[in-house]
Amino acid sequence: MDYFSGHIQELIEQLATLPGIGSKTAQRLAFHIISMPKEKVEKLSKTLTETRQNVRYCKECQTLTDTELCPICGNPKRDHSTIMVVETPRDLAAYERTGKYEGVYHVLHGAISPMLGIGADDIRLKELMTRLSGDVKEVIIATNSTLEGETTAMYISRLIRPVGIKTTRIANGVPVGGDLENIDEVTLLRALEGRTVL
Amino acid sequence: MDYFSGHIQELIEQLATLPGIGSKTAQRLAFHIISMPKEKVEKLSKTLTETRQNVRYCKECQTLTDTELCPICGNPKRDHSTIMVVETPRDLAAYERTGKYEGVYHVLHGAISPMLGIGADDIRLKELMTRLSGDVKEVIIATNSTLEGETTAMYISRLIRPVGIKTTRIANGVPVGGDLENIDEVTLLRALEGRTVL
Repeated sequence: MDYFSGHIQELIEQLATLPGIGSKTAQRLAFHIISMPKEKVEKLSKTLTETRQNVRYCKECQTLTDTELCPICGNPKRDHSTIMVVETPRDLAAYERTGKYEGVYHVLHGAISPMLGIGADDIRLKELMTRLSGDVKEVIIATNSTLEGETTAMYISRLIRPVGIKTTRIANGVPVGGDLENIDEVTLLRALEGRTVL
Repeated sequence: MDYFSGHIQELIEQLATLPGIGSKTAQRLAFHIISMPKEKVEKLSKTLTETRQNVRYCKECQTLTDTELCPICGNPKRDHSTIMVVETPRDLAAYERTGKYEGVYHVLHGAISPMLGIGADDIRLKELMTRLSGDVKEVIIATNSTLEGETTAMYISRLIRPVGIKTTRIANGVPVGGDLENIDEVTLLRALEGRTVL
């Protein structure tokens, strides 16, 4: 790969280290960036460094933000007595897109995984427990429906039980628009177990 | 979308303007970038601006480069009497990946397209004709096999005919590994027409 000149090759290589960006996508992006107006490239470049420099954890929910409190924790209209526990800020964004959840969040930044050597102390559980001393009515555990997510959910529910706060888990079931024939057996069984009266 | 704080939201929005990057990919990239070491982000940011600032057209083949001559045109080991005409620097990269082509290139930066109002003067044809006054034995036209690419190939071949230089077109046919049943009729006919003796 020495057919592009130094800078271009360097840009392609750096872009290709990003997740989900293969060498061809990196090439396409690099040539797009090269053909962008200079000011736009400078703006992107500035945003990159500035975002990285200013980012920190929200002192309440631990999501990534650039202010002391994230926009959600800083919003007095949200229901601060309902906390949804998620693994990543992107999971938070997923629930925010529904536009219906009015509580706040707690971002663990991972899930317990004995396989990967990630224990309860490696995720932001201590911060969650500290928050529970406030006025909290319900903790909704919305970790992923994976082995790690389920383990984490179980662990958290046991941790909260002595505190006496209501702890719930989001439902498993058939995704809306999902075709039964394409859905795995475990999900189908969970959907059956979780059936509701019409 | 006001659940991410200012800088993060801004970074996501800027990333989402890049080609092939939707809002979810932009989110994934942004959070990856935020978790990268500061020095790496600064390096990427610097590469972005520097590449954009230094990029120019190779004075021979017109590809994008940051030196007067691109690495290929500046390589004395390449056969400078064979010129492959391609539409974009990425097409050049595609042929370079074969590792077998030893000639040089000419990048048109587009193709003639009456539909899009792109005429012969809008692509780098004049520069190609200037090069033909040198010691050139063959011009291989490797524009895409699309309507625009074919139109451009025809146009170039007619332009070169009076000059008397051998002009060839890369072959149409069944892609290697391709299943006949999945290939369109036009390609199958071209493959038949271009059959070679075994």
